[in-house]
Amino acid sequence: MKIGAIEAGGTKFVCAIGDEKGNVEQQVRIPTTEPGETMESVTDFFLANEVDAIGVGSFGPIDVNKNSKTYGYITSTPKPGWKDYNMVGFLKQKLNIPVSFTTDVNVAGYAEAMQGAGVGKSNVLYWTIGTGVGAGYIQNGEFLQGISHPEMGHILLRQVKGDNYKGKCPYHANQCFEGLAAGPAIEERAGKKAIELASDDPIWDYVADYAAQACVNATLFLRPDIIIFGGGVIHQEHLIKKIRVKFEKYLNGYVTTPDIDKYIVRIALDDDAGIKGALLLAVKELAESK
Amino acid sequence: MKIGAIEAGGTKFVCAIGDEKGNVEQQVRIPTTEPGETMESVTDFFLANEVDAIGVGSFGPIDVNKNSKTYGYITSTPKPGWKDYNMVGFLKQKLNIPVSFTTDVNVAGYAEAMQGAGVGKSNVLYWTIGTGVGAGYIQNGEFLQGISHPEMGHILLRQVKGDNYKGKCPYHANQCFEGLAAGPAIEERAGKKAIELASDDPIWDYVADYAAQACVNATLFLRPDIIIFGGGVIHQEHLIKKIRVKFEKYLNGYVTTPDIDKYIVRIALDDDAGIKGALLLAVKELAESK
Ligand SMILES: Nc1ncnc2c1ncn2[C@@H]1O[C@H](COP(=O)(O)OP(=O)(O)O)[C@@H](O)[C@H]1O
Ligand SMILES: Nc1ncnc2c1ncn2[C@@H]1O[C@H](COP(=O)(O)OP(=O)(O)O)[C@@H](O)[C@H]1O
Ligand SMILES: [Zn+2]
Ligand SMILES: [Zn+2]
Repeated sequence: MKIGAIEAGGTKFVCAIGDEKGNVEQQVRIPTTEPGETMESVTDFFLANEVDAIGVGSFGPIDVNKNSKTYGYITSTPKPGWKDYNMVGFLKQKLNIPVSFTTDVNVAGYAEAMQGAGVGKSNVLYWTIGTGVGAGYIQNGEFLQGISHPEMGHILLRQVKGDNYKGKCPYHANQCFEGLAAGPAIEERAGKKAIELASDDPIWDYVADYAAQACVNATLFLRPDIIIFGGGVIHQEHLIKKIRVKFEKYLNGYVTTPDIDKYIVRIALDDDAGIKGALLLAVKELAESK
Repeated sequence: MKIGAIEAGGTKFVCAIGDEKGNVEQQVRIPTTEPGETMESVTDFFLANEVDAIGVGSFGPIDVNKNSKTYGYITSTPKPGWKDYNMVGFLKQKLNIPVSFTTDVNVAGYAEAMQGAGVGKSNVLYWTIGTGVGAGYIQNGEFLQGISHPEMGHILLRQVKGDNYKGKCPYHANQCFEGLAAGPAIEERAGKKAIELASDDPIWDYVADYAAQACVNATLFLRPDIIIFGGGVIHQEHLIKKIRVKFEKYLNGYVTTPDIDKYIVRIALDDDAGIKGALLLAVKELAESK
C-alpha cells in the first residue's frame, strides 16, 4: 500500500510517498504561491504517484473541527489567496481518497508520540520552539481539541525579573510564550542569531524559564505522561536541563510527575517527523473511513 | 431505581439518595473524623437505604486513574488517618455496587455540564473560586485527565502591576491562580471578609484579571465551548463582566471564541450541584458496568 503526506508550509509544500509504517520513499518540494498553482502541482504529483490516503499537516490557522462547515479550510491567514481556502475539499475532489487534516505541529507531535520519544505513553505533549511556538497533545492516539485545535504557543506567562524585553508577539507582545521565547524573540533580544549566543548567555535562562512555566501549566491543565520539546531553538541541548531545574522549582512538588529526566525530554525523531506523522495519520484516516 | 451520592469533604460527608435524573430525595450529613468511623456511618446509611450505584465527589488529592494500583484512594492528604485511604475499595466491599469516583470539583462541573450552564455543549470548562481554586473539564461527557486529574487552580499567572500581595498558596505563594485569587487571598489582602468589600474595590479588578488570564490559558490549551464559574467568590455578580472585559483584552482576538456573553458565564445550578453531579456519574458508572 502507498500512502501520501503533505507538509503544507508558508514557503513550500513537501509532498511525499511512503508506507503504512511512516517510511518515506520519495518526496518533492513545491513552492507556495497561489493556491490554484500550488495545489495543482500537489495533486499532479499524487495523480502520477497513486496513494490510498493522504495526511496533511498544514500552516494555519486551519479548521480541524469535523462538525464545522469550513472543516478542512485554511481560515484567517494573511497569505494572499489562501484565506478561506478549502484544502481538504480540493484534495478530495481531485484524488477521491481519504484525507487526514491537522496542523503542522500536530503531525510532528503525532510522529513523536507514535514512533519517537512518546512511544508507549498514553498522554503525550509536544512543544516546538522555532520561528513560532506551537504544541500538540495526543491522548491515546487522538489529538486533544475542542471547538478547534489548541494554540498553546500563546499562553500567558509571567515575565522574569530582569528580562525587560518588549516582546515579539503581534497579539500579546511580551505576555505570551511565543512573544517571549521563540527564535525571533531570542534574536531580537540578543541582536544576533540564536545559534551565535554562548550557552551561558542569560537569555537562555529566560527561555528556559518560560518553557518551564509552560510545562507547569501544561502539567496542571493536562497531566501528561511526557513533555517533548522540538524546534530550532531546542538544538541548544543545554536548554532541557535548565527547563527541568526551573520546572521543579516552580511546581514545588504540588503534584507528582514521572521522573523529571523522563518527563521533560527532547525529540527522538529528526526533521522528517512531520512527514512521518502525516503518513501515520493518513493510515489512521483510511482505517476509520472503512 | 435509587441512586446514591457522596460529597466527601474535609469537615463533613453529605450522603444522598436520589433518582437517575439527579433529583435528590433524602440527604444526611456525617462529620469527617477518622475514616473508620466516618465511613462506617456512610455505609450504614446506604445499607439502610439501598441504592444501585454510588457516585463520590471527594476532597483530595485522590487517585482517579483506573489503571493505577491506588485507584480510588485518597492519597497524600495531611488529614489524620485519611492518607492512602482506599475509599472506593471500602464502599465496594461493604455495598457491592458500582462506584464512580472523582474530585469534588468534578462532580459539580459534571452537573453544570449536563444540567446547568453547559447543557448542549461538547467541551465544558468549570472553575470554582472559593476557599481554593479548582477546575474540571468535561468533553462529550468524559472528564479530561491524563496520569491524574487536572489541578488547574495552581496554574502560574502573571501578577498584575500594582498588586503587591505576597500570595497565599503554600506551594506557589503569589505565583499561582489560587495563591492570588481564592477567597483567603482576597481576605488577607483586604483585612476583612470578601463579602464586606465594596464592589468597586480594586481587589476585585485583580481577581478578575487573574480569572481572565486563567480563561485565556484555558482557551488556548483546551478550546472549550464554554467557561463556567462557580464558588463563593463568584457570588460577586459584577466579577463576570470584569473577567470578560479583561479576557478580551488579553486574548486580543488571537483565536475566535463563542460570543463572550455566552462563553464566560456563572453557574446555573445552585449549591446542590455537587450531589446532583455525583448522582449522574453514578448512573453513568452503572450503565458502563453492565
Ligand atoms: N542551533 C540553534 N540554536 C538556537 N536557535 C536556533 C538554532 N537553529 C535555529 N534556531 C532558531 O530556530 C528558529 C527556526 O526554527 P525551526 O523550528 O527550525 O523552523 P520553523 O519554526 O520556521 O519551522 C530560528 O528563528 C532560530 O532563531
Ligand atoms: N458573597 C461573597 N462574596 C465574595 N466572596 C465570598 C462570598 N461568599 C463566600 N466568599 C468567599 O468564598 C470562600 C468560600 O468558598 P465556597 O465556595 O463557599 O466554599 P469552599 O470552597 O470551601 O467549598 C470564602 O473564602 C470567602 O472568601
Ligand atoms: Zn502571543
Ligand atoms: Zn499554588
